[in-house]
Amino acid sequence: MSVRRILFFTGRIMLVLAALLMLPAAVSAIYREKAVVSFLITSAVFLVIGLLFMIKKPEKGAYRASEGFIITGLSWILISLGGALPFVISGEIPSFVDAFFETVSGFTTTGASILKEVEPLSRGILFWRSFTHWVGGMGVLAFGIALFPFSRGKKNNRDGGSEAHIMRAEAPGPTYGKLVSKVSLSARILYIIYLGITVLEIVLLFAGGMPLFDSIVNSFATAGTGGFSIRNASIAAYNSVWAEMVIGVFMVLFGINFNFFYFLLIGKFKAAFKYEEVKWYLGIIAASVIAIAVNITSVYKNVAEAFRYSFFQVSSIMTTTGFSTADFDLWPTFSKVLLVLLMFIGACAGSTGGGLKVSRVIVLIKTALREVRSSVNPRGVRAVRCDSETLHHSAIISISSYFAVFMLLHALSIVLVSLDGFDFTTTTTSVVACFNNIGPGLALVGPTGNYSMFSVFSKIVLSLDMLLGRLEIFPLIITFTPRAWRNR
Amino acid sequence: MSVRRILFFTGRIMLVLAALLMLPAAVSAIYREKAVVSFLITSAVFLVIGLLFMIKKPEKGAYRASEGFIITGLSWILISLGGALPFVISGEIPSFVDAFFETVSGFTTTGASILKEVEPLSRGILFWRSFTHWVGGMGVLAFGIALFPFSRGKKNNRDGGSEAHIMRAEAPGPTYGKLVSKVSLSARILYIIYLGITVLEIVLLFAGGMPLFDSIVNSFATAGTGGFSIRNASIAAYNSVWAEMVIGVFMVLFGINFNFFYFLLIGKFKAAFKYEEVKWYLGIIAASVIAIAVNITSVYKNVAEAFRYSFFQVSSIMTTTGFSTADFDLWPTFSKVLLVLLMFIGACAGSTGGGLKVSRVIVLIKTALREVRSSVNPRGVRAVRCDSETLHHSAIISISSYFAVFMLLHALSIVLVSLDGFDFTTTTTSVVACFNNIGPGLALVGPTGNYSMFSVFSKIVLSLDMLLGRLEIFPLIITFTPRAWRNR
Repeated sequence: MSVRRILFFTGRIMLVLAALLMLPAAVSAIYREKAVVSFLITSAVFLVIGLLFMIKKPEKGAYRASEGFIITGLSWILISLGGALPFVISGEIPSFVDAFFETVSGFTTTGASILKEVEPLSRGILFWRSFTHWVGGMGVLAFGIALFPFSRGKKNNRDGGSEAHIMRAEAPGPTYGKLVSKVSLSARILYIIYLGITVLEIVLLFAGGMPLFDSIVNSFATAGTGGFSIRNASIAAYNSVWAEMVIGVFMVLFGINFNFFYFLLIGKFKAAFKYEEVKWYLGIIAASVIAIAVNITSVYKNVAEAFRYSFFQVSSIMTTTGFSTADFDLWPTFSKVLLVLLMFIGACAGSTGGGLKVSRVIVLIKTALREVRSSVNPRGVRAVRCDSETLHHSAIISISSYFAVFMLLHALSIVLVSLDGFDFTTTTTSVVACFNNIGPGLALVGPTGNYSMFSVFSKIVLSLDMLLGRLEIFPLIITFTPRAWRNR
Repeated sequence: MSVRRILFFTGRIMLVLAALLMLPAAVSAIYREKAVVSFLITSAVFLVIGLLFMIKKPEKGAYRASEGFIITGLSWILISLGGALPFVISGEIPSFVDAFFETVSGFTTTGASILKEVEPLSRGILFWRSFTHWVGGMGVLAFGIALFPFSRGKKNNRDGGSEAHIMRAEAPGPTYGKLVSKVSLSARILYIIYLGITVLEIVLLFAGGMPLFDSIVNSFATAGTGGFSIRNASIAAYNSVWAEMVIGVFMVLFGINFNFFYFLLIGKFKAAFKYEEVKWYLGIIAASVIAIAVNITSVYKNVAEAFRYSFFQVSSIMTTTGFSTADFDLWPTFSKVLLVLLMFIGACAGSTGGGLKVSRVIVLIKTALREVRSSVNPRGVRAVRCDSETLHHSAIISISSYFAVFMLLHALSIVLVSLDGFDFTTTTTSVVACFNNIGPGLALVGPTGNYSMFSVFSKIVLSLDMLLGRLEIFPLIITFTPRAWRNR
C-alpha cells in the first residue's frame, strides 16, 4: 500500500474535476448569472487540492487491489464534498449538508432531492446538478483514465494495473469486462459510446420540440440513469408523448451493459446477443410493464394510457433513473410492490444503473434453484452456469455474500433512519431508493415528495447509502478501514 | 423413492393425530360441549386415512433423504387440512379456508388468526387451537417417532435412517444435532425436556393466580412459540406482571436450542455454554430490550413500565411467539422497525421458534465480514468459523442459498398478497409475520388486528408461507415436485 500513490492518483481526479467545473461556469456565464463565481472558486479549490496531492511523485512498486478501492472511495468522497460548494457559495442551497446530499445524489445518479422546488434554481446550477449525473454514471475515475491515462508507455504496465483496479472498483456490477487489453483505451471507447448515445438522445428530444437546454440536461440525467429534473413535475411537465417515449427507451438503453453496444459496434452480433443478463433485463421490463399496465388500467382512461405510464415508470425504476410522469404512490399496492422489487434488482452490470444488478439476481436465483434441485436429488452434481460458463464456488460465495452485506446494510440504515420517526413506508423505501440509486420511494419520498424533512443525521446516513450503493459497498468500507491504509 | 413407504409412514402420523384428538375431545366432554362430536368425527377421519395408507406394508430397500422430506411435507399438509375439520364441523369457524388458515397457523406456531374475537369459542376448540401449537412446536413427526419408533430392533437401521431424515426435515434450523445415536431416543429425550419445561410454566402461572385452563393453554402457546391466546386482549387481559414475566422468560427459554438444555441436564455445562448461537441470541434480546425501552419511555409512565413492555414484546417477537401486552403498532417507528428485523432473525435452530434462525444469521454476518476483510487484504486466507469449527464452503453456499430462496419467496408472496390492495405496511408485514411464524405484523395485522379481511387467495398464500417458514422451505417444495415422487 502506498499512500503517496493513492494521493497522487486522487490528485489527478481533483484536477479533472477542476476542469469539468468550467462547463457549468460557461453555462452560467452565457446566461449572465452570479453563480459563475461559485464555479470558479470551487474549480480553484479542486485545483489546489489536486496540486497539493500531487506534490510528491508516487514511488514505483507493486500495486494492490485495495489501492484501487481506496483511490475510488477517497475520490468519490472528495468530489461529493467539493461538488457541493457551488450550491452553498451561490446561496441556492444554503445548508452544506443539504448541498452534500444533493451532490452525492447527483454523482451516484440517485436523483433524490432535498429541494421542494427546482425551477427557481439558476441555469448554471441546474446544469451542474444534471452534469454530475452524466459524469457519475459512467464514472468520474473512468473519465480521468480515459482522458489522462496513468501509463504513458507500454513497458510501464504497473500503472495500467492500477487503472484496471480502479475501473473494477468504480464500475457497477460484479464483473468488469475489459473490452481491449489497454485499460485506458477501454475507458475511452466506453466514453465515446456513452457520449454518442447521449448526443443522439439530445437530438431526438430537441427535434421533438423540447428546448435545447432542457434536452441537454434531461439527456444527462437519462444517460447517468440519474433522474434529476429541471422541472418541478419532472418529465410530466413537458406533457409530450414523444419526449416520454424517447426518454423511456433511452433509459432502457443506458441500463444495458455497455459491452453489448461495443460488440454491436464492432459487428460481433453473436457475442453481443450471448449476454444472458441483457435478455433477462429486457424480459423483466416487458413482464413488469404488462403486469402494471393491467393493474392500473382502472386508474387511467384506457389501456394505451395505462401502457404509456406503466412503460415509463417501469423503465425509470428498473434502470434506477427515477424520472416520473405519474405519481405511482397513488397506484394500487400491487404496482407499488412490483416497483419496489424492481428497485432492488436494478439494471445490468457495466451499465450506468444501480441496484443489485440483474446478473447478481440471476446468479442468486440459479444458486437457489440448484439448492432446491439438490434437495430433490442429492446425488446429482450440478453447476451454476451463466453465459454458458460454469461459475466457480468462490464466485457464488462472493455474490451471495454481497447480497448478505447488501441486505444487512439496508437493515442497519432503516434502523438509523427510523430514529426520525417518519412512517414505516417512508422509512423503508427512502433507504431502498437511496441505496439502489433510484431517487423516489413511496409515501413522503414518493414521486411528488422530496427528502427535505429528514434530520441532518438521516441525510448523512442516506448520503452514505447512495455512495455505498453506487460504489458497491467495498471501496467505501475499505477507504474507512485504517488497516487498509497501512503500509505493508 | 418408495411411494408405498411414504404412504405407510405418513399413515402412522395420521394415527398419531387420531389419538391426539382424544385430548380436546376429553376437554369438550368435561365442559359438556357439543364440539366433542366434531373431534370424534375428525379422529375417525384420521384413523381411516391412516389405516388406508398403511394397507400395503412398505418394501425394504435404500431410503433417500427426499423420502423424509416428502413424508414431512405430506404429513403437515394432511394434518393441516384434517385439523381444520373440528372448527368447521362444530360451526365455530364455518369457512373451510379460514379454518385451514387457523390450523396451519396453529401447527406452524405462527399464531396469526382470522378470528376477530376468540372468547366466544368453546373450551374444547380453544384447547385444540392451543394444543396444535404445542405439538407443532417440537414437531408432529418427532412426536410420532418418540412414541412409536419405526425401527424395532437394532439390526434394522434402515428405518432408523428414515427417522433421521424426517427429524432433519422437520426440525427448525440448518443443523440437526442428534443427542444420542438412536433417533427415536433423541426424539423422546427432546419431548421429555419439552414437557418438563411446559409443566413448570403451567405450575408457575397457576401459582400466580391464573385459572388452570388458561395456565395450560397459554403454556402450550408459549412452549410452541405460537402465540394463540384465549383472550381477545392476549396476555394483556390478565393485567398481571407475574404472568407477563413468567411467559416472557419462558418464551426466551423455548427459543433456545434444546440441545443446550440436554447438555445442562446431563451435567455437560461446558458443552452447553459452548453454543455461540445461544450467546448471540441472548445478546440480541438484551440489546433490543434496552434500545426499545429507551425509545418508548416517552410513551409510558416511567422507565420500569417501558422495560416491562419492551421485554415482553421483544421476547415475543424474537422467539416468533406473537403474544402481546402492548399495541406496538402505536410505538415510534424505530421500535417497530427493530421488531420487524427481529422477525426475520427469529430464534435458535433446534428450538420451537421460527425465522431465519440466529445460527444462519451468524454465518451470513461472518461470511459478509470475511468478504469485507478479503477485499481489504485479498492475500489473507480466512475461514468462517462457528462454534470453533471451520465451515466448509458447501455449508456456506447452502446457508447463503437458503437466504436467497427465503428472500425470493418473501418477495413473491408480497407481490401475490399485494393484489388484495391493502396498504404497503400491511401487505409486507403480513407476509413477514406469517413466513417467520410470528403472528402479528404492523398496521391492519398489528397486535390488535387480525387476518380476516384478506381474500381467500391471500389466505392460501399466507398459509403456504407459514408452512414454508415452519418446514424451512425444501420439504414443502419437494412434496409438490412430481419428479421427486418418481421411483428411480
